[in-house]
Amino acid sequence: MTTTPDPFLDPVLDPVLDPVARRDIDTAAARIAGDVRVTPLLTLGGAALGLDPSLTLLLKLEQLQVGGSFKARGMFNRLRAQAERGALPAAGAIVASGGNAGIAVAAAARALGVACEVFVPELASAAKRAALVALGARVTVGGATYADALQAARQRQHETGALWMHAYDQPEVVAGAGTLAREFEQQAGGLPDRLLVSVGGGGLVAGIAAWCASRCWIDALEPVGAPTLHAARAAGAPVDVAVSGLAADALGARRLGDIAWAVSQQHVQAVHLLADAAIAEAQALLWRELRLLVEPAAALPLAALRQGVVRPAPGERVGLVICGANLALKDLELP
Amino acid sequence: MTTTPDPFLDPVLDPVLDPVARRDIDTAAARIAGDVRVTPLLTLGGAALGLDPSLTLLLKLEQLQVGGSFKARGMFNRLRAQAERGALPAAGAIVASGGNAGIAVAAAARALGVACEVFVPELASAAKRAALVALGARVTVGGATYADALQAARQRQHETGALWMHAYDQPEVVAGAGTLAREFEQQAGGLPDRLLVSVGGGGLVAGIAAWCASRCWIDALEPVGAPTLHAARAAGAPVDVAVSGLAADALGARRLGDIAWAVSQQHVQAVHLLADAAIAEAQALLWRELRLLVEPAAALPLAALRQGVVRPAPGERVGLVICGANLALKDLELP
Repeated sequence: MTTTPDPFLDPVLDPVLDPVARRDIDTAAARIAGDVRVTPLLTLGGAALGLDPSLTLLLKLEQLQVGGSFKARGMFNRLRAQAERGALPAAGAIVASGGNAGIAVAAAARALGVACEVFVPELASAAKRAALVALGARVTVGGATYADALQAARQRQHETGALWMHAYDQPEVVAGAGTLAREFEQQAGGLPDRLLVSVGGGGLVAGIAAWCASRCWIDALEPVGAPTLHAARAAGAPVDVAVSGLAADALGARRLGDIAWAVSQQHVQAVHLLADAAIAEAQALLWRELRLLVEPAAALPLAALRQGVVRPAPGERVGLVICGANLALKDLELP
Repeated sequence: MTTTPDPFLDPVLDPVLDPVARRDIDTAAARIAGDVRVTPLLTLGGAALGLDPSLTLLLKLEQLQVGGSFKARGMFNRLRAQAERGALPAAGAIVASGGNAGIAVAAAARALGVACEVFVPELASAAKRAALVALGARVTVGGATYADALQAARQRQHETGALWMHAYDQPEVVAGAGTLAREFEQQAGGLPDRLLVSVGGGGLVAGIAAWCASRCWIDALEPVGAPTLHAARAAGAPVDVAVSGLAADALGARRLGDIAWAVSQQHVQAVHLLADAAIAEAQALLWRELRLLVEPAAALPLAALRQGVVRPAPGERVGLVICGANLALKDLELP
């Protein structure tokens, strides 16, 4: 989320010269097998969600993952890999996050029995702070905005030497996310014709695209209010974007990750923007028709199909990554 | 739910002399394969829910079924079977229900293109009535209580000749429910050591027990406020019980079905009662740890394990039937 190179990025691999390879994802899958859940695949005809009945929809229910989102895959992979190298500091792990990444780092650190510090902005809800504390994390309010929290966390990391965990732009984080696609392929007996994936900083789509390696069509989906990949493609490189809107909590990265940029240029076939109203409609439909309660970020794949932004050919097998469900029930307003 | 024989029960099979057989469940599975969903199985270690880590938990996510509960299996089976016999009246189907059975009948009738009348008591929420109307059902408020609605529905059935759909005590309804256990066995590569199932009128446990036929241990679970099977065992036959409490909406039948009585005497190894507080704790835990939002009735299996009411041996494979998620988000209060 900064414009300068990040000295805390993994020092072993160069994210530009050595993008995540399928063997890294195989390694990650073996490494985290005991930590994460094999999340179920729900298979439906298109009619179940008011779409072309000839479609087969394959919903990867990743909101059932440890910590309520796909993030656990990457965070466990990074922590376990560091532990294997004997490079896990006594101070444990540190992250700046008010959302899914923080929860996943806290859950992973707890499982490995190491300390975890999470720096959150003041606007992080009391419920989220309580969830982090329940996972054993030390939670510090690092200022008014996310940028403040990030700065405070970096200062703290310099003092303690804790392992810096980036929310999406570290090779092991991306490789961990890629295990979702590997698992999908095993469960479905092959890749689908098309995979629909939400994008924030791009860690998830990068991992999935690295695994699929153009063996299936990937539609990357962004809210209008957080168009990191769209803006990067328009500018020819990752650029800062203003962030707002319904799904900003989970997809509101300020800038696409360098790894996501490198991988997506090769293996992401299309990028689409979705309005908040379309995302909200899809989120409500997932509850009403399927009894899946998910966060807005997880509703973009269905929104893209419902809006006709993505138009599969008749008979296609379409994979939808349902990426998370970290929302506060009391704040919920579904039609 | 009456003490006298019900003339609307299926006239072909005698529920006492000819209890549901495994071949009936095979037939049902083939018959409804195009109508219902194969619901996913989520496999977890016991530690994920604060239980003995040596346990393997197999959660059958049946709340993802058409209509939000297992009921669709039985209702589709009965309607399709009647259609096969050429015995589906022009007036369609009729049911008295303010809950999951009514939703399932309405969904099945819509899919078959036949009319559906649902009689509900005044206390049925506006949200549930709206859901039934959205499924194309004609909804009639049949009086103050469920008994009034039942009486009004029977009167109407005499007038129209519509197919009477019992919520749980008809052979095809039970055989349809049994397809859940058949599907579980296929998905898990065998039956678990133990299956935990909630009981209201007993249609679900009867179908599951008929399929398992004592090949695995079945724990039947009831809320303290709706102990139909417990009371039947104490009395030596089904008897009316007073109904109250958290899960009464889904499990609040007044009396165990005759089919459930016959089958459960052979193939249900234990019956346990659970307090509302234990059910509520388990419901909250399913959301907090797994992001599964379910109705109270679906939380009894986890409640039984959490409370130590059911104590599996170390290393057991334990099946939990997560039977439904028809709840109103706006009424929800989870800790």
